[in-house]
Amino acid sequence: MIPSKKSIEEASERISPYIHKTPVISSERINNLFETSIFFKCENLQKAGAFKTRGAVNAVFSLSDEECINGVATHSSGNHAQALARAAKLRGIDSYIVMPEDSSKVKIEAVKGYGGKITFCKPNLESRETTLNEVIAKTKAIEIHPYNNYKIICGQATAAKEFYHEIKNLEIIIAPVGGGGLLSGTALSTSYFSPDTKVIAAEPVQADDAYKSFYTKEYYPSINPQTIADGLKTSLGSLCFPIILKHVYQIITVKEKTIINVMKLFWESTKLIIEPSSAVCLAAIAENKQEFKNKKIGIIISGGNVDLEALPWNQNNTNLNI
Amino acid sequence: MIPSKKSIEEASERISPYIHKTPVISSERINNLFETSIFFKCENLQKAGAFKTRGAVNAVFSLSDEECINGVATHSSGNHAQALARAAKLRGIDSYIVMPEDSSKVKIEAVKGYGGKITFCKPNLESRETTLNEVIAKTKAIEIHPYNNYKIICGQATAAKEFYHEIKNLEIIIAPVGGGGLLSGTALSTSYFSPDTKVIAAEPVQADDAYKSFYTKEYYPSINPQTIADGLKTSLGSLCFPIILKHVYQIITVKEKTIINVMKLFWESTKLIIEPSSAVCLAAIAENKQEFKNKKIGIIISGGNVDLEALPWNQNNTNLNI
Repeated sequence: MIPSKKSIEEASERISPYIHKTPVISSERINNLFETSIFFKCENLQKAGAFKTRGAVNAVFSLSDEECINGVATHSSGNHAQALARAAKLRGIDSYIVMPEDSSKVKIEAVKGYGGKITFCKPNLESRETTLNEVIAKTKAIEIHPYNNYKIICGQATAAKEFYHEIKNLEIIIAPVGGGGLLSGTALSTSYFSPDTKVIAAEPVQADDAYKSFYTKEYYPSINPQTIADGLKTSLGSLCFPIILKHVYQIITVKEKTIINVMKLFWESTKLIIEPSSAVCLAAIAENKQEFKNKKIGIIISGGNVDLEALPWNQNNTNLNI
Repeated sequence: MIPSKKSIEEASERISPYIHKTPVISSERINNLFETSIFFKCENLQKAGAFKTRGAVNAVFSLSDEECINGVATHSSGNHAQALARAAKLRGIDSYIVMPEDSSKVKIEAVKGYGGKITFCKPNLESRETTLNEVIAKTKAIEIHPYNNYKIICGQATAAKEFYHEIKNLEIIIAPVGGGGLLSGTALSTSYFSPDTKVIAAEPVQADDAYKSFYTKEYYPSINPQTIADGLKTSLGSLCFPIILKHVYQIITVKEKTIINVMKLFWESTKLIIEPSSAVCLAAIAENKQEFKNKKIGIIISGGNVDLEALPWNQNNTNLNI
C-alpha cells in the first residue's frame, strides 16, 4: 500500500538517531545568475554522503530480529550500497552488497569501510539481479532493494519533510530521478506536507527512461544508458512509477554538458562537493531559465560521493555525447 | 599598538552585518584515523570563500569617509584581493588590486566579479610592491596591506573568537601561517578569550620562513618558495612577528605530499572544498600523530578558493618536491 503520512512521520522518528538533519543552504552567486531563489537541501552532507542513508536505515530498523538474522543484501552502483552497509553495522547484522565492477573506487572503499561484503557483477541490470539471487541463495540474507521498497521510499521521503519544515512556501521542489525512490518519496511528502508545491524531476537526456515512461504512461526500462550521472542509470521501480505518475508535475531532461558545467559552478560557488546526479536539478533550471525566473525553488542535493581522481572537467569523456 | 581585547570585540561588531558566522564541523572518519577530536572552523564557507573577508571588512569600514574617498588598494595572490574588492563594493568605493600574473583563474575572476580593478605584476614581492606603489601614486587610493595592518589582524582575530565561543576547552588551536595575519589574530584572541589553549602554526616545509624566524627569533624573508599552498608563500609581516613570538607555542612544517593527501582526505570525508593552504593544519597532525593523540583540537580552515581544473592530485607537479 502506498505509504501514508503517518508512515513517513514514523520513519522520521525511527531514523532520527542515526542520520544528520542536513543543512539547507543558498548561494547568492547562483541566485543572481539564474535570477531566482533556490534553496538546497544538502543530503551530500548526510551520513555516508547521500540521502540513501535515510531509506536504508528506515528499512533495516523496520525489520524484526527474525527477519534480519542472516543479514541484508542488495545490488547498488554505490550510495545505497554504502548506506545499507552502514545501517546493517548499526543494527549489528551482516550486509552483502552486489556492486557493478565499474563502480567508483571511493564508493567501493566506503562500503568496505562499513564492513559490507562485496560481490562484483557486470554493469547491467541482468547481471546485478542474477548475482544478487546467487548471494541470497547462499546467505539467506533478506533483500533490501535500493528503491522498489515502501520502507525505502518512506525513508527517502523524510528529506522533503524536513525541507518543508525548514523552508516555507516553496513553489517548486526538484529532485533527480533514477530508480525513483527519492522522487516518489519527495512526491508523497509534498502531497502530505506542502500540497501547493509543484514536484519536478530532472533526468539526464541520455538516461531518459523516466521521462519516456512519464509522458507515455507506459513503463520504459533503462537500457545501458551512458551518462556522467552514475546514480541515475537505473530503471524506474514498479512501486515508484504509479506514485510519480500521480504526484509529479513535470520531468525535465538535461544535457551532459550542462550537468558538468553546473556541477563545477556549484562547487565553486558553495565550496560543497556534489555528485553529477545531484547537479541535474540545477541543470534543469540552467536549461530553462525563463520557466524558473523569480520562483522560490527547493532542490534536493542527493549526494556528494565523487571519485576525485576522475572529475568530469578533467576528463576526455570520449563515450559521452557532451 | 598591539590590538586589545576591546578592539577585537569592536571588530566583531563592526563586521557582523557583512560576514557569515561560519559553521564548525567535525568528521568521524578523520577523528578515527588520527585518534583525536578535531573541530574545524569553516572559513572556506565565509563570504568570498576565505577568512580574509573578516580583516578586509574591518579595515575598510574602519576608514573615515575622507580616508577612503579615492578607494583602497592592495597586492594579493588572491583571497585578500577578493575580500578587499568585496568590502570596497559594500562601502561603495573603488578597489585597485595588484595580483601576481600566476594567480589562480578562479581568484582573478572573483576579483573582477566584485568590481576590483586589477593590475598584474610578476610573481615576486619586489614586483608586487613596485606595481602597487605605481597604482597608488596614480589613484591616491589608500593601501590596505593583506596582513601587516592592525585592523586586518583584528578582523582575522574574530574567527578564533567565534570559535572559542562555540567550542569550549580546546586544548590546541592550529592555524596556517603565511604573512601571519590569521596566526597573529588567532594568537591574540587565544590570549584574551581562551588563554589555556596552545596556539600551534602549520607551514609548508618548502615555505618555512616563519618556522626559521620563530625558532631563531630573527626575521627571515620568504624567497621565491615553491609550494602548492599558494596562500602561504608570503613573508611574515613585521607587525605580526612580535605577536607570534610572544603568543605562539610551536610552528610545525609539513611536506607537500602530506598537504595534498590530507586535502583529498578532507574533501572525501566532509564533502567540503578546502584550499591547500587550509590542509597544512591537518597535515601537521598527520605527520605528528602521537603528539596530537586524544587531544581536543581546533583547526581554522582558512579558505576554499581552488582552481578546480588544476587539482594537485590530477597534476604532475614537476616543480614540487613531493
